[in-house]
Amino acid sequence: MDGHDTGPGWPGIMRRQTASLACNMTKFNPSGVITITTDFGHKGPFAAVMKGVILGRFRDACIVDLAHDIPAYWPHEAGFWISRAYQYFPAGTVHVAIVDPGVGTGREIIMVEYDGHVFMAPDNGLLASMLNAAEAPMVYQLQRASLGRLGIAEPSLTFHGRDIFAPVAAEFASGRLVPADLGKPASQWTPAWIDEPDVTPHRVTGVIITVDSFGNLISNIDQALIRPFKSPVATIAGHRLSLKSTYGNARPGEYLALINSFGVLEIARAEGSAAAGLGSERGAPITVVEA
Amino acid sequence: MDGHDTGPGWPGIMRRQTASLACNMTKFNPSGVITITTDFGHKGPFAAVMKGVILGRFRDACIVDLAHDIPAYWPHEAGFWISRAYQYFPAGTVHVAIVDPGVGTGREIIMVEYDGHVFMAPDNGLLASMLNAAEAPMVYQLQRASLGRLGIAEPSLTFHGRDIFAPVAAEFASGRLVPADLGKPASQWTPAWIDEPDVTPHRVTGVIITVDSFGNLISNIDQALIRPFKSPVATIAGHRLSLKSTYGNARPGEYLALINSFGVLEIARAEGSAAAGLGSERGAPITVVEA
Amino acid sequence: MDGHDTGPGWPGIMRRQTASLACNMTKFNPSGVITITTDFGHKGPFAAVMKGVILGRFRDACIVDLAHDIPAYWPHEAGFWISRAYQYFPAGTVHVAIVDPGVGTGREIIMVEYDGHVFMAPDNGLLASMLNAAEAPMVYQLQRASLGRLGIAEPSLTFHGRDIFAPVAAEFASGRLVPADLGKPASQWTPAWIDEPDVTPHRVTGVIITVDSFGNLISNIDQALIRPFKSPVATIAGHRLSLKSTYGNARPGEYLALINSFGVLEIARAEGSAAAGLGSERGAPITVVEA
Repeated sequence: MDGHDTGPGWPGIMRRQTASLACNMTKFNPSGVITITTDFGHKGPFAAVMKGVILGRFRDACIVDLAHDIPAYWPHEAGFWISRAYQYFPAGTVHVAIVDPGVGTGREIIMVEYDGHVFMAPDNGLLASMLNAAEAPMVYQLQRASLGRLGIAEPSLTFHGRDIFAPVAAEFASGRLVPADLGKPASQWTPAWIDEPDVTPHRVTGVIITVDSFGNLISNIDQALIRPFKSPVATIAGHRLSLKSTYGNARPGEYLALINSFGVLEIARAEGSAAAGLGSERGAPITVVEA
Repeated sequence: MDGHDTGPGWPGIMRRQTASLACNMTKFNPSGVITITTDFGHKGPFAAVMKGVILGRFRDACIVDLAHDIPAYWPHEAGFWISRAYQYFPAGTVHVAIVDPGVGTGREIIMVEYDGHVFMAPDNGLLASMLNAAEAPMVYQLQRASLGRLGIAEPSLTFHGRDIFAPVAAEFASGRLVPADLGKPASQWTPAWIDEPDVTPHRVTGVIITVDSFGNLISNIDQALIRPFKSPVATIAGHRLSLKSTYGNARPGEYLALINSFGVLEIARAEGSAAAGLGSERGAPITVVEA
Repeated sequence: MDGHDTGPGWPGIMRRQTASLACNMTKFNPSGVITITTDFGHKGPFAAVMKGVILGRFRDACIVDLAHDIPAYWPHEAGFWISRAYQYFPAGTVHVAIVDPGVGTGREIIMVEYDGHVFMAPDNGLLASMLNAAEAPMVYQLQRASLGRLGIAEPSLTFHGRDIFAPVAAEFASGRLVPADLGKPASQWTPAWIDEPDVTPHRVTGVIITVDSFGNLISNIDQALIRPFKSPVATIAGHRLSLKSTYGNARPGEYLALINSFGVLEIARAEGSAAAGLGSERGAPITVVEA
């Protein structure tokens, strides 16, 4: 831990997150690993048939479920988790995200090569926040005509996860194709549905992006945005909370603000649910000021 | 997409489903992939210990969870999903289904070789609908005496998934055994608990088989049964709905009937839950007539 | 089935459980399999990033989710399931358990080599019950200083699953390291939060440890403790229930007491939920007496 960039009560993990988004010099060299993030939930065989299609094309794929509980009309959360989680996977991993209310309409599919990983998602804003923060990502728009060479003549209109994303991901993960083979370079994409944090010298305002199984409220405020504050205080739902370093030091029922292990501001409640206690959910505003 | 067999509003996927059930000439050549479908839910280690047993016998198995949320007393749904999903897995996959209210009683276990895949389930009607539709499936009844050669001397009375299905599936997936090695040919099996759709020249009546995480109501009416209608209209819970081609074209709150990506009639609600909105659940009747 | 040690109504599986806990002569020889048991639930990418970290160090790992629904403040349940489930995995499996309300405080991490498997958990009582029953387990306390050789200079204060457990498990599963390389032998550990069953000649009293998806109430009373009774009767929530051998013989709605497939006393309700019907949950007392 380095005293120059971490103050009292700051976990030592904080530097990793920002460093990893700093450049795009690592070439994609496939690891054979594929992650899947969807809004399918855990009922029915929807993720499973995607895995079947992948294995049919690439039997040695190692497929990891990243999350399947993204709310159907909140694609931003999928992009949030992918941007915060991808670095923990081997370089050369393919990350597929399908939160896709516009399936079957004219929406495009984008493919991104960045930091040695490949990302695929509907072009509906899901990856926008990550792309905005990335330095020189290589972004491609999937060309439907190019699917013919994969034998995907007639994808269904309602399940592109199975009929387009899965076979394409298998081709990338196996090393047979790269995004440039199937798409044309794109310099624009659908913007995010959620604003980036608003940053002024004395105040940072963001929103709650997701709530985990414990009821912890996880915001889009990166630790780097809070670093200028000497004694940061988070304000949410009428509560003012000083930043703590871990869950374990609090009294039962106490709320705490902390930088979580993914490098963003989180509101927790010791031995309880912050979401239930504060009546806050996805989209709730959260502000950081000096004490 | 071919104008000869698809009318306006019909997704192009429709032909795949029926073609794959047409013959049984592909021999089973193991891919090493095993799918598991159960009513265990996601609590506790029940599916996990099945995987442990499989890996103990066949370390290179690739095990995919198909679904674990089948209602305990609705085995038909397991068979429905397996019959609709298996074709997306590599040829040579072993599909194990355990929705087994009769475990520990005299119920038999059946093993099926069909279309290059192997299927295993309790003989309680779970696979009956698929077997009825299949052309010349090879069906075997597991002989308990044959389990001795697998070292399964004393299966528990309450967890055949772990003690019988898992080790047998591992033997099939590894290629060491085939169903004929452990069973005797069977020409009869327990019938399905749910009637096949009732088909007349002007009316097709089926039932809702399952409800997905979005609240979509998925019926047992195959697209082939609706093809004779010029302007098919689905009737459910007092609503009359013309068939649409995709979710994306509807206004929020609007109900739609469509052929889903698994080739059956589905009732959806744009940006909402059809199940909640219509008050319909598994078992609800659904009818298709000419407009 | 052997008449000498099994009476009427006893399933034949019962002897396996006790035999497997009898000695610790099998050396750990890695199978490459890792199981993960947590309280993370199924929302968010928490288990997934652990898998990413493991695969980054050991691409051939085979990772199985044992359970992710352990209540956050009931670590005992994780240890219960691991102690009852590990034997069904290949020898040489690494079992990681993270139910860790004290993460970021001074709590230690213990590593256990036993019966040819390796176990890792916070030293918070999670593994205590298993260790108490084990004969000569080799127990080590992880030395934080030793993590430097794994390149884990700065673990986060809130997610040791990702930053410590996952990389260490990968090193064990790959065979590059064993627990003795990273820890010092320990002869003491934090005791369990839940008492072992109280055993007298005419009465055994335990508690409900977990409730499965069907609402079955699963106790910590091992079948070996009931064997001395001629006609054992279980008492819970004012009901007296004679032991049955399987679920299948009961009338709908009937409660039954049985030795389940993991070798412990369980209360079930035919075609219903015993937990809901009896109003009983984790921690409820349960007693066995002679009829």
